Amino acid sequence: MSKLLAVGTVAFDAIETPFGKTDKILGGSGTYVGLAASQFGVETGVVSVVGADFLDSDIKMMNAKGINTDGIEIDPNGKTFFWSGKYHNDMNSRDTLITELNVLEHFQPVVPEKFKDAAIVMLGNLHPLTQASVLDQMTEKPKLVVLDTMNFWMDIALDDLHTVLKRVDVITINDEEARQLSGEYSLVNAAKKIHKMGPKYVVIKKGEHGALLFNEDKMFFAPALPLAEVFDPTGAGDTFAGGFCGYLAKTKDISFDNMKNAIIYGSNLASFCVEKFGTQRMEKLTANEVKERLNAFKQLTQFDIEIS
Amino acid sequence: MSKLLAVGTVAFDAIETPFGKTDKILGGSGTYVGLAASQFGVETGVVSVVGADFLDSDIKMMNAKGINTDGIEIDPNGKTFFWSGKYHNDMNSRDTLITELNVLEHFQPVVPEKFKDAAIVMLGNLHPLTQASVLDQMTEKPKLVVLDTMNFWMDIALDDLHTVLKRVDVITINDEEARQLSGEYSLVNAAKKIHKMGPKYVVIKKGEHGALLFNEDKMFFAPALPLAEVFDPTGAGDTFAGGFCGYLAKTKDISFDNMKNAIIYGSNLASFCVEKFGTQRMEKLTANEVKERLNAFKQLTQFDIEIS
Repeated sequence: MSKLLAVGTVAFDAIETPFGKTDKILGGSGTYVGLAASQFGVETGVVSVVGADFLDSDIKMMNAKGINTDGIEIDPNGKTFFWSGKYHNDMNSRDTLITELNVLEHFQPVVPEKFKDAAIVMLGNLHPLTQASVLDQMTEKPKLVVLDTMNFWMDIALDDLHTVLKRVDVITINDEEARQLSGEYSLVNAAKKIHKMGPKYVVIKKGEHGALLFNEDKMFFAPALPLAEVFDPTGAGDTFAGGFCGYLAKTKDISFDNMKNAIIYGSNLASFCVEKFGTQRMEKLTANEVKERLNAFKQLTQFDIEIS
Repeated sequence: MSKLLAVGTVAFDAIETPFGKTDKILGGSGTYVGLAASQFGVETGVVSVVGADFLDSDIKMMNAKGINTDGIEIDPNGKTFFWSGKYHNDMNSRDTLITELNVLEHFQPVVPEKFKDAAIVMLGNLHPLTQASVLDQMTEKPKLVVLDTMNFWMDIALDDLHTVLKRVDVITINDEEARQLSGEYSLVNAAKKIHKMGPKYVVIKKGEHGALLFNEDKMFFAPALPLAEVFDPTGAGDTFAGGFCGYLAKTKDISFDNMKNAIIYGSNLASFCVEKFGTQRMEKLTANEVKERLNAFKQLTQFDIEIS
């Protein structure tokens, strides 16, 4: 069992889907990563910032799940980061209605002493300089640095992104972002170019179409579990990343073969995340449910051809 | 080893992709199904019609691959079905430039005596009444009837399609067509509704995003092999279907578990088809290449998680 450090947002979301809408509820990439990793009993520290309006009950919920929140700064003079979005009927596209950065605007992550030697570091989708500042604080070189980013940072801070990527082992991005970052349409070629930027492992998230893991000439694919109903996709990508990191932290094995398993666990947990609004499903998820669904993933993907 | 009867088009295609363009070359669903099935050494009879302009060399090539062409009528007064299309940069969408039905307009398939007891019947994408007329000619009830169709027939002949679907075991359609046929967005729900129309097995082709097989509450997924370069997607769906049917005909086992293998073989063969223009790649494909790529599919999808 290794320690996992997750830097990301802890936020309020207001979500509208064809199934309904919510007021401000708990959200944020750090939250989803932490909740996913908590499934593995891993010691996870979340580093983030919230405002005075943040709910003590949400902190308590995270602590009850075993998430260390010492690294979540509470700014008494600020308001919590707020995002509001509306999903279209196909759930694959969404409009952002409101983005209030609030306390996130001047966020300077401070890594708690206890997590400065974390073996696995998950750098959530933040400014590349903010992500780099976390690595600067580590007293021991992490065994694995995982970075999530998005097109926004490629647009406004590409040089900084390239600089931090040199220190990263695994990048997780979606297919369009992989194409933008590499200038290649084929994901195989995109991954090859991104390898050269630093990350030995490239995870390309394709939403309902699954996820691809690339490492040099090796490839692995995990489908998303086909579901009768996707209720709210918010947080699915972060849950996927949290499942990936959490499983690697638990097993202390960062071989390519074990990363395959980690990708499957990520996809497994993400399939739960989308079943209810926000973090609701992840807060109640049990180990037995995860185990059962792992069987569903096996049935979905495993075959037995004798190659003669 | 069972006999396979494949009804479909044998055609000329003129194709334009970002990589180049062709004059009239051999194409057609029946051709691609036959070429794919020929990989399994299965006795495959293709039923179709061509015009006086069709090339004897193409017939000879098919015969050399073991495809029985007795069912390909040559209309001395007609011209061969001709399709011309242009693919966009992403290869996922295309414009049809020319469709000349020619001899296909009054096509009345005639099943050769030898194939009237074929165990597996593949009804290519034709008018549902034409598909039904093939089943009417069978002297023995086939073990498995596979039907391919498209949105065009849902638009202009939905009642006829529903009638023939009652006689079908497996339907192969793409995701958009499954949604149109069922009125359901979720593919899980779409498959459930389509089961009720007749087919016990629903195969949903998602192009570069792979293929799903549904049977009651069971699901299986095969990814498309991620490729550095997709040269020409023409015929990939038919090659997939031909690989599926060919493998089932060879193994004489239509259990769900064996259909998983058939889906993998279909995806395997389709991944070759797109590597060159038209039928070029499929004409030269060797058993060893297929075997090697099967290993690539295993590495891409198989994992080994101990569920404790």
